Amino acid sequence: MNEVIETILSHRSVRKYQDKPLTNEQIHKIVESAQAASTSSYIQAYSIIGVKNQQTKNRLAELAGNQPYVAQNGHLLIFCADLHRHDVIAQIEGKDLSESLESAEKFMVALIDAALAAQNASVAAESMGLGICYIGGLRNQLQDVQELLKLPGRVLPLFGLTIGYPAADTDKKPRLPQANVYHEEVYEQDQNKFIEELKAYDEQISSYYNERTNGKRNDTWTGQMAHMLSNPTRMYMKEYVEKQGFNKK
Amino acid sequence: MNEVIETILSHRSVRKYQDKPLTNEQIHKIVESAQAASTSSYIQAYSIIGVKNQQTKNRLAELAGNQPYVAQNGHLLIFCADLHRHDVIAQIEGKDLSESLESAEKFMVALIDAALAAQNASVAAESMGLGICYIGGLRNQLQDVQELLKLPGRVLPLFGLTIGYPAADTDKKPRLPQANVYHEEVYEQDQNKFIEELKAYDEQISSYYNERTNGKRNDTWTGQMAHMLSNPTRMYMKEYVEKQGFNKK
Repeated sequence: MNEVIETILSHRSVRKYQDKPLTNEQIHKIVESAQAASTSSYIQAYSIIGVKNQQTKNRLAELAGNQPYVAQNGHLLIFCADLHRHDVIAQIEGKDLSESLESAEKFMVALIDAALAAQNASVAAESMGLGICYIGGLRNQLQDVQELLKLPGRVLPLFGLTIGYPAADTDKKPRLPQANVYHEEVYEQDQNKFIEELKAYDEQISSYYNERTNGKRNDTWTGQMAHMLSNPTRMYMKEYVEKQGFNKK
Repeated sequence: MNEVIETILSHRSVRKYQDKPLTNEQIHKIVESAQAASTSSYIQAYSIIGVKNQQTKNRLAELAGNQPYVAQNGHLLIFCADLHRHDVIAQIEGKDLSESLESAEKFMVALIDAALAAQNASVAAESMGLGICYIGGLRNQLQDVQELLKLPGRVLPLFGLTIGYPAADTDKKPRLPQANVYHEEVYEQDQNKFIEELKAYDEQISSYYNERTNGKRNDTWTGQMAHMLSNPTRMYMKEYVEKQGFNKK
C-alpha cells in the first residue's frame, strides 16, 4: 500500500482542532490541489471562499447549527457551485448562455465539479497531517450564508470544509460492505442478498457503538438512517436553488 | 511537497490505455479508497457499477458519444447517486421516507457523496501509476444506461470513470488563476479585476493551444465556454432526474 492510499484510508472526520492557523503556503497548496481535480469539459464551475475572520466564522458556526468546530479551526473553506463566472463570459463574448446555465444538467456538473475539487483539497490537507470535516449544516440557512459571503447570483454554497491540526483522536467509522456498494456488471438483482448485507452491517455498527459507549448506545445503521430520513430537512432547497439561477429547466 | 500532493498535482485525463486489465486486488483497493471518503451524515448515498464485460463496455461507449476509451481501458466504473438502498431501509424499518428521499436536498447530498467517492477512487488509481478519465457523456442517454446496468428506481448514473495503464502521454491543462477561484473572506466584488483575471487566463490558454498545435489552434477559454454553452445539451435531465425519484420536492 502506497502513501497516497494510506492517507485516503486513514480518513476520519476531525471536529476538534488545535488553536494553530494554517500558513498561507498550506492554504495555497490545498487550493492548488483542489483545482487539479478533473472538471467537466474544462468548465471549472466552482469557487472556494476562504474564511479567516473570526466574526464571520462565528456567524457561520451559528448558521450551521452551532457546531463549535466551524468557528474553531485552522482554516475554513466554503465550496460553492459557481456559474456566475460563465454569466460574465456571456457578457464578454456577447452571447446568451442562460438556457445552458439554468439547466439541471449544468447544476449537476457544477455540484460534481465542486465536490471533486473539495475531495482533492481534503486528501491534500490530510497528507500534511491536518484533519478535516465537511460541514453540510452550512445548507441550513443559505440565504444568510449568501449575504455574509457576498455571493452573486448563480453561486450556490454547497458545504464548508474545516481544516486544522487535530486536537483529539477520532475513530474511523466502518463503511457499508463493499459488495453492497460495488456491483459487478449490473446492479445487485437479489433483494435478499442485498438485505442480508445491510443486516450484517447493522450488527457491525451496533457492536461498534456498543464498544465505544460501554453499552450505552447500540443503534444500527438502518435504524439511524430511518430516524434521520423520517425528519425531512432543508425542504426550502428546491425553490432556493432555482432562485439562485440553477436547475430551472 | 509530499507524495500525495505530487500525485494530485500530476493529474491529467488519460484517454488511451494499454490492453491490460486491472487486477481484482487493484479494483478492490480503488473501491475501498472510494468508500473511505466523507459522507453526509453517514448516508453513503451512492453505488458503483464495475464493468468488465466487453459488450457492455462497447454499448456504453456508443451511448457516451462513441468515445473509444470507454470501451478500451483497464476497467470501467459507473458512479451512481443511490437512494434505492434507503428505500429498502424504509421497508425494513417500516417507515415512509419518501418526503426526504425525494427532496432537492437529498439529491444534492447523493451527488456530492458520489463525487467525493469518485475523486478518492481517481487519486488512488493514479497513485498506482494508472490513468483515469471521467465520462460525463454517460449522461447523454441515461434511460439506456439505466436498462443496461439494471438499475432500480432512485439510482441515477452520474458519470463513468475509465481506469487503465496509460498508453500515451497527455498534457496537463492549466487551470483558472487561483485568485479567480479562491476568494478571501467574501466573493470578489471588483468586477474589473475578475474580468482581467479571465483575460489573462485566456492569453495563457491561447498560447497553450498554439504551442501544441503549431499555431493551428489558438482559442481562448472564455471563447470555448461561450461556444459550448451556446448549445444546451441533455435538456431532458430535469424531467429524467425526477422520474428516477430525485429532486421532486
